[in-house]
Amino acid sequence: MNTSSPSTVADLATRRKTARVFANTHIELKDILYSIEAAAQAPSGANRQPWRFVLVDDPEMKRRIRAVCEEQEKRRHAIVDANLRQWFASKKITWEKPFLTDAPALLAVFSNQSMPYASESTWLAIGYIILALEERSLSTLTYTPSYPENVRPVFNAPSEYKLETILPIGRSLDSNPKEPRRPFQSSVYRNLWNAEA
Amino acid sequence: MNTSSPSTVADLATRRKTARVFANTHIELKDILYSIEAAAQAPSGANRQPWRFVLVDDPEMKRRIRAVCEEQEKRRHAIVDANLRQWFASKKITWEKPFLTDAPALLAVFSNQSMPYASESTWLAIGYIILALEERSLSTLTYTPSYPENVRPVFNAPSEYKLETILPIGRSLDSNPKEPRRPFQSSVYRNLWNAEA
Repeated sequence: MNTSSPSTVADLATRRKTARVFANTHIELKDILYSIEAAAQAPSGANRQPWRFVLVDDPEMKRRIRAVCEEQEKRRHAIVDANLRQWFASKKITWEKPFLTDAPALLAVFSNQSMPYASESTWLAIGYIILALEERSLSTLTYTPSYPENVRPVFNAPSEYKLETILPIGRSLDSNPKEPRRPFQSSVYRNLWNAEA
Repeated sequence: MNTSSPSTVADLATRRKTARVFANTHIELKDILYSIEAAAQAPSGANRQPWRFVLVDDPEMKRRIRAVCEEQEKRRHAIVDANLRQWFASKKITWEKPFLTDAPALLAVFSNQSMPYASESTWLAIGYIILALEERSLSTLTYTPSYPENVRPVFNAPSEYKLETILPIGRSLDSNPKEPRRPFQSSVYRNLWNAEA
């Protein structure tokens, strides 16, 4: 399927939906490396390329990551504000993160906070990754653990690196529909705020 | 050229280079709207879609934006650290931002800071925008003004919205080569930091 004719960016963006449930099937790590190859071409503050990636496919490592993430989520869910608590409940999101062990691979993304616009540049590059994974028929979820500074040590990452997200990657078995989006026109103004585009 | 067969994400990412010099030629605003349509499909914290866009093509508005941005850059360049000062000098980057009036259009991107992961989500969506513009043969630069809170009022944007970037958009006349990127392999580890992928 990797040799199918390419899709437009808008097609990739439109069909792509968040996946929380993954098939336990083999995926090609080269497809994930392809997405990182694309990301490494992204622009960044002063072209410092502040991103680093840890590709995780070792089952024991996935278990350790899940355990430390779930510890953080238990703390977070205990104090979450009412709006977000309601949204979590409506989406059946709890402190449990089974996708961290169910997905065949995880991609942890870090940014070097000593570099200019490190997080902004890295999230822009994550946009490239998500579209490139979709192109290779791989699904993901932009999961950022609560208190990521407590998760960073599991990877042996140096302290100047912030853990921005952990992307579980695989074939989606998620039966939920894509979360609805507002019509894009309602987010665009012309020349001044609130003026019609 | 908009009907040419689509390119892969990696091709778009690889050929795309930052443009600081723009042709004074007409561009189709629908190509910019296409990129926003793609961005509006991006994932976001709790699916709040925190982004807003102001598409600027009015010459007087561009002049006002340039004037207020250049004021901020003068302040910033006076106090910039030695590393960045050297990088600016090597790239001939000064407080002057002619692309803000030379480019046929500007796209100002805002994020609602009251929403979860507002900046992260918005920069991910900016990644989508950049690839979609490249697909339509439009060039851009991820310019974030220094002290963006002083630039926000020019757009009449409400105070909870942070100005994340202003993308000048047009046909590139920039003769500089693409800034070099590290081989992507040097940014990826396997299972643990510093382990070869």
